[in-house]
Amino acid sequence: RQGGRRTDNMMASWNNNRKIKGVLLDISGVLFESGAGVPIDGSVEAVKRLQSAGLPVRFCTNETTMTRNMLTEKLHRLGFSMKDEEIFPPIPAVCKVLQKRNLRPHLLVHPTAALDFEGIDTLNPNCVVLGDATAEFTYHNLNKAFQALMSMEKPILFSLGMGRYYKEEEELVLDVGPFAKALEFAADVKAEIVGKPSETFFSSVLEDMGVSPENAVMVGDDIVSDVGGAQACGMLGIQVRTGKFRPQDESHPKVKPDSFADNLLAAVDLILQASK
Amino acid sequence: RQGGRRTDNMMASWNNNRKIKGVLLDISGVLFESGAGVPIDGSVEAVKRLQSAGLPVRFCTNETTMTRNMLTEKLHRLGFSMKDEEIFPPIPAVCKVLQKRNLRPHLLVHPTAALDFEGIDTLNPNCVVLGDATAEFTYHNLNKAFQALMSMEKPILFSLGMGRYYKEEEELVLDVGPFAKALEFAADVKAEIVGKPSETFFSSVLEDMGVSPENAVMVGDDIVSDVGGAQACGMLGIQVRTGKFRPQDESHPKVKPDSFADNLLAAVDLILQASK
Repeated sequence: RQGGRRTDNMMASWNNNRKIKGVLLDISGVLFESGAGVPIDGSVEAVKRLQSAGLPVRFCTNETTMTRNMLTEKLHRLGFSMKDEEIFPPIPAVCKVLQKRNLRPHLLVHPTAALDFEGIDTLNPNCVVLGDATAEFTYHNLNKAFQALMSMEKPILFSLGMGRYYKEEEELVLDVGPFAKALEFAADVKAEIVGKPSETFFSSVLEDMGVSPENAVMVGDDIVSDVGGAQACGMLGIQVRTGKFRPQDESHPKVKPDSFADNLLAAVDLILQASK
Repeated sequence: RQGGRRTDNMMASWNNNRKIKGVLLDISGVLFESGAGVPIDGSVEAVKRLQSAGLPVRFCTNETTMTRNMLTEKLHRLGFSMKDEEIFPPIPAVCKVLQKRNLRPHLLVHPTAALDFEGIDTLNPNCVVLGDATAEFTYHNLNKAFQALMSMEKPILFSLGMGRYYKEEEELVLDVGPFAKALEFAADVKAEIVGKPSETFFSSVLEDMGVSPENAVMVGDDIVSDVGGAQACGMLGIQVRTGKFRPQDESHPKVKPDSFADNLLAAVDLILQASK
């Protein structure tokens, strides 16, 4: 399977006259491996091909360990071309929600990502916002977030994505989802997800592209959050065999991708065929 | 409500000719407040009254931050009388399960409690055992437990209890349950609970007393794990208004205790009436 020897065929759903008019790409695990300083082979070329074909491309990430600017800069440094506003991380989205609903968050997020909350009032918190805090997920910090929820008459918990895990320097590490589940259980609340796989999040991206879900495809390495989430919104979903992909994903009990692809370049081949 | 001014009435279930012949007591939050060096007012007297009345008493705890010996010693120091074998913590129970099923645990437990696993083979782990690890619940340690599960062909996760939180020096802090939920979600596995509210655990205690569930009562401060768990096994359940009790518990959506009581002494009054 390595080296692209296997030919992935498009599933039946693809042949159903679904012309692709817009593409959503996950970032980490698709454009580059998390923690790595180089792009995944062929991924720079793959994005260029989509853009040259005139297909609108949006970058949908649950990345919350860096600011949006740092992420854009990193992608440019790796050779990718995109505008800042074509990248959709969850923090700008949750900030809009907080302001609209007049909420003041207790933040349990990565120290770097916290910079993107500048200007948000965090005094006397009346909700908790949980991001991928990595090493900041200490017993102490989790207790503080839990106590904040328990002190609220009507506890509100936002989770920036609901990913189970991702690959970081050859190891699978816990994403924000497990910690959201922990706080949900402890404080008896249901988290509101901002980011993938929330339908609101995917819809805002589709709206920005002016493409309807049946003409859009999402490419990701997370079978549940990327592929399953996109399919639930009516889009097609391709899982790449990079990033956190595991062979067991090909017999996942709940999610059947419309196609697998060895990497983004192979996925783009399939997409360009389906956009003609 | 403080000072015992309120009279708690036994619920209908109590008047149903259910003579009490055995009593299960939670320890932390019932005999003493977690972190405190003195017993809860009246609790030493309360246990004595039960014992003097000839009722078998067993101490059922999900305590995994100290060894069984340390726990017995602490209770004796506080003035309680009981035999070592009348105390039922989850670690001796899980050790029996591990040996019976030939399992080698990856341990994520409190460093002190780890001593009670002496003699258990932990090389090449084929299961994970999760206890109340408190400050050892770091991102690093949770990742290690997660990775251990992911490396197993058929991941097995034991959780020593499933408590949501408890009170520690005036603060509510996370118990083992939320972390079990986190690992369940991350590794897509269902934890086997050893300790309260597992029916197996309660049954082994009842068997030890030689009392059938309809003649037994559990007294605890945890409405779900103590009261709900005991009721699910056919026992009566009393919630005391000490420990982690919160006023909201009196209108809990799922669990209705057979009675509330201001503290263990008040609970014992009710029990002694029902044992005549």
